[in-house]
Amino acid sequence: DFTSQHWECQSCELAVRGFAGSHVIVSLQGIVQAYKSGITLQGNTTSLGRWNFSGSFFFSISAITTIGYGNLSPSTVAGRIFCILFALFGIPLNLVLLNEIGQLMLLGTQHCAHRLEEVFHGQKKASLLIKTCALVTGLLLFLLLPPLLFSDKEGWSYEEGFYYSFITLSTIGFGDYVIGMNPDRTYPGWYKNVISLWILFGMAWLALVIKFCISFLE
Amino acid sequence: DFTSQHWECQSCELAVRGFAGSHVIVSLQGIVQAYKSGITLQGNTTSLGRWNFSGSFFFSISAITTIGYGNLSPSTVAGRIFCILFALFGIPLNLVLLNEIGQLMLLGTQHCAHRLEEVFHGQKKASLLIKTCALVTGLLLFLLLPPLLFSDKEGWSYEEGFYYSFITLSTIGFGDYVIGMNPDRTYPGWYKNVISLWILFGMAWLALVIKFCISFLE
Repeated sequence: DFTSQHWECQSCELAVRGFAGSHVIVSLQGIVQAYKSGITLQGNTTSLGRWNFSGSFFFSISAITTIGYGNLSPSTVAGRIFCILFALFGIPLNLVLLNEIGQLMLLGTQHCAHRLEEVFHGQKKASLLIKTCALVTGLLLFLLLPPLLFSDKEGWSYEEGFYYSFITLSTIGFGDYVIGMNPDRTYPGWYKNVISLWILFGMAWLALVIKFCISFLE
Repeated sequence: DFTSQHWECQSCELAVRGFAGSHVIVSLQGIVQAYKSGITLQGNTTSLGRWNFSGSFFFSISAITTIGYGNLSPSTVAGRIFCILFALFGIPLNLVLLNEIGQLMLLGTQHCAHRLEEVFHGQKKASLLIKTCALVTGLLLFLLLPPLLFSDKEGWSYEEGFYYSFITLSTIGFGDYVIGMNPDRTYPGWYKNVISLWILFGMAWLALVIKFCISFLE
């Protein structure tokens, strides 16, 4: 059982019989190093695990939203310094954007609340109804329905997709699950853009929910 | 060169000559799977990479602060559901705590500002001086001095330690650098506690700085 025992060797060397029949010496650390630098075990490439345009774009989003999956990270000194400067300006700018999106969402629900007030002729009833509606719509759009998309496109179970959704929108971003990383699957072009929008609007929504929770706690 | 080429095989099997002289068949995917489940290549154990008390404590901090290094992550359904519930209550509670720490820091600087006003007899001069002092002290305590500790305890370069400090306090937490993960080093008992306090106070300080930046932007 390979996963349940410690590896006693400092830098084990393995004799690999390659496709040409000759022996190649590789080290366990080399394999893990190669894995960490984004090389997958399969030959087919995925866009989000490499430093091409879409992979770098996804890295930028993961940095400024502070999700930080870590499937890609800068490995050179210049890259790290640029990443710090990029995040230093990107994080506040993204927070301003999230704040604007959150304000728009609040304005939208308040607009609906005013309309409902006219219908129901009761302010308290309408306010409670609209708050429940906003919460349920947000839950559906940002937490309960996306796992269905993930199970279709990534082959994850519903529970894995829900876990990924929560870990992403709360900006924890462990990086144990990252979309677009399965080299055996082909992803449609709109998939990445929809996920980017889902992250932005979902984070703004969850920030609003957390703000309400904090105002209850204080 | 192992790290610069794609691995063409789906699940390569390697013949490993073990310490007893017999051949063992392992797969590349098995090695990566073992690496992902927190098993290091060295025999000596580090506390923060395993699910013992200090490792789990560090995982809890990484979850509720939304840093999410990902050096440890739950792998069972029950573990993931508990992690979601834990973060759902932990993140707002931690935000309340960070807010309190931030308020204490603001009160401290305002107290100093009032004292300085009496000395300088000028409100604007004192206010500017105390803001600069608070910024420089924060920079020193939370970003410029910790890399020296990391280079001593982890063997990182100053630049690597500074990168780790920024990526941690901004809660990005890629997980490419995590403290206490080098099995070749012994870490003193106070090290982990000091890092925990540094994360809490540093995050509160950086949140204040980002708030000021946003108020300038808006």
